[in-house]
Amino acid sequence: MTRKYPTDGLFTHSNLVDAWRVEATKPVSYEVRICDDAFEPANTALLEPAPPAGTRRRRFVVVDAEVERLHGQRIRQYLDHHEVDYRLYCVEIDETVKELTTGEDIVRAIDEFGIDRRREPVIAIGGGVLMDIVGLVASLYRRGTPVVRVPTTLIGLVDAGVGVKTGVNFNGHKNRLGTYAPASLTLLDRSFLASVDRRHIANGMAEILKMALIKDARLFELLEHHGPRLLDEHFQGERWAAGQVASEVVQRAIHGMLQELQPNLWETELERVVDYGHTFSPTIEMHALPALLHGEAVCIDMALTTMIATSRGMVTTGDRDRVLAVMDSLELPSWNDLLEPRLLARALEDTVRHRDGLQRLPLPVGIGDAAFVNDVTSEELAAAVEDLRRLGTARLHGAALEGAA
Amino acid sequence: MTRKYPTDGLFTHSNLVDAWRVEATKPVSYEVRICDDAFEPANTALLEPAPPAGTRRRRFVVVDAEVERLHGQRIRQYLDHHEVDYRLYCVEIDETVKELTTGEDIVRAIDEFGIDRRREPVIAIGGGVLMDIVGLVASLYRRGTPVVRVPTTLIGLVDAGVGVKTGVNFNGHKNRLGTYAPASLTLLDRSFLASVDRRHIANGMAEILKMALIKDARLFELLEHHGPRLLDEHFQGERWAAGQVASEVVQRAIHGMLQELQPNLWETELERVVDYGHTFSPTIEMHALPALLHGEAVCIDMALTTMIATSRGMVTTGDRDRVLAVMDSLELPSWNDLLEPRLLARALEDTVRHRDGLQRLPLPVGIGDAAFVNDVTSEELAAAVEDLRRLGTARLHGAALEGAA
Repeated sequence: MTRKYPTDGLFTHSNLVDAWRVEATKPVSYEVRICDDAFEPANTALLEPAPPAGTRRRRFVVVDAEVERLHGQRIRQYLDHHEVDYRLYCVEIDETVKELTTGEDIVRAIDEFGIDRRREPVIAIGGGVLMDIVGLVASLYRRGTPVVRVPTTLIGLVDAGVGVKTGVNFNGHKNRLGTYAPASLTLLDRSFLASVDRRHIANGMAEILKMALIKDARLFELLEHHGPRLLDEHFQGERWAAGQVASEVVQRAIHGMLQELQPNLWETELERVVDYGHTFSPTIEMHALPALLHGEAVCIDMALTTMIATSRGMVTTGDRDRVLAVMDSLELPSWNDLLEPRLLARALEDTVRHRDGLQRLPLPVGIGDAAFVNDVTSEELAAAVEDLRRLGTARLHGAALEGAA
Repeated sequence: MTRKYPTDGLFTHSNLVDAWRVEATKPVSYEVRICDDAFEPANTALLEPAPPAGTRRRRFVVVDAEVERLHGQRIRQYLDHHEVDYRLYCVEIDETVKELTTGEDIVRAIDEFGIDRRREPVIAIGGGVLMDIVGLVASLYRRGTPVVRVPTTLIGLVDAGVGVKTGVNFNGHKNRLGTYAPASLTLLDRSFLASVDRRHIANGMAEILKMALIKDARLFELLEHHGPRLLDEHFQGERWAAGQVASEVVQRAIHGMLQELQPNLWETELERVVDYGHTFSPTIEMHALPALLHGEAVCIDMALTTMIATSRGMVTTGDRDRVLAVMDSLELPSWNDLLEPRLLARALEDTVRHRDGLQRLPLPVGIGDAAFVNDVTSEELAAAVEDLRRLGTARLHGAALEGAA
């Protein structure tokens, strides 16, 4: 042999070479960038990287059908302006069709359009469900094709658009199939939120509230004082600049999320504070489908687990009431009739499998901190459900009194 | 906030925090181990890791239907002996059903059986196609469930079983969807080869020949001198110990493969000598399906590209004839009527997309070395086809004369 081969990372067990251990590290790098208008012609961030000299860019663009109706013309003008050879693939999408078959249709169209393996990223414009599906099929196409994401919903901006998880529902289970595959670039363009309906703004605020509860007391206070206004204004009240409330809320949520994700991108560590609100909610959401949005199911889970934390003395009744009041003010549900002990026990059982044999249940500690427990019993769950029902009834009663006053 | 968070690897672009870059490295480690009898009760390698004290192991075992007919009893006895709570899932599998739907059936059964996320690896027993599919769905299930592989064919032992690529065919293209996901452990048990048919032994030898041609002249000589005997004996002639020809051939092929894969597990570098024989063959194989096995299509590609290398002066006519003679002696095809310029041009075009815009075509340099070229023309392809046809006819004629003598 005339060539030399690197041997670092390849170990053989003996001179007999009857066993090999292969070791390697995969470097990953991705960017999340706020921008005021991704489709302003002067902004070329969306079209990175540049094509080889003398050739046109080719891009396969997956766009949510509703986003296309509202913004399609602007998107096409942008792509035409930059002389991109593109296909705009529109898809009606929501949680009920977050299935492998939807992904197969998309990736078949990608294959038929034909893109180069590394330098012609798929562009995904839409909400969290769209980004999860496109992220999955792109990560499978030729074993990994880059993606550029433009989330158009609040939950996309603060949650689905900043992490590395892709997925589809399968066999009645939420996100049962998926990959860890970061988009090379995510552009956060707040202007899309102006046309998102109020309920979907609240839906995204549930994930912001999650970050607040488990690691950012200041963020909680911002939501407590300004949440309803942000909801009214669809986060459009001010320019997208630091120092303003809308910006600070979004930036704190994203920064906290990325702080948690970065050291644990592949979930080597299964105790994740960002799993708060995601223990019972996957099962609740799939059972309620399509009645509950993702953030709504997460909020119900947070309400329930706030009860558990309160009865364990980890959260005071005063803080508990502040949390429930913020949920109310953000127009998020803290109750659902699916909250019954048998379903919750089944949800916990599946989560335990997902967390490799232990509950690893994050619970809030006061407001802005969290701890993990492994010993929640079905009796405790039943008691938490009763607490939540009673408090909900009391709040309804209080609201009725207020209304009458 | 009372908690401290690591900030290494998370960079913000300015004080305004309007952009974040997330950097991380994923460590990967996997083992490939030769063992004489994976299902000998004293050998517990297959059942790593041990379950928590006081609990039984649970394992979902996917087994090729033909392997189950021949070895099912032995496999069940082994699992029963170790008191494993298992489900044996049999699947009739070959290249024609290497599709997503086959994978979906398997993963639905995995989901219904229920396994823990990290410590209950799926066990895959079968040939390369089975391992590719099981590897894919396991890598998707809960975004990554470990797999232990027991390849039962020669191509599985020396190729599919030692790498990290998983995949299924899609939209008429070979392995168009897949992941990079190493099995935590692969056990190479040569005893299965005794019951593999002769054609499938030759099929695996094509991948061994590939390693010989592009990086291991000694391996080529071993094939040249002992190839037919190894084929006759199904690699069973001797004990599986270093120093014997059968063992040396397999071990050199695997060692060379792992040397190439380890520094480039995720194909960051698209110039891969192990892609030799894999430029035109994916298209040929898919068009010929089910007439050609994978290794047969690879061999036809190697015969064709040996012609190109010869006409470029990179391989002497003497070495070219040795290569074709070894292909013949291993009962591998070096010609197929699909070798016509239009199909080859299309195959090359798709490969160029896969190699991100360049041909990056590995060609042999003599025997045991390789180089990459980017300038193969359709005229050169047509000439290579004609050369190969003429030489094939001449060899047939020669064989007929010999037979007559």
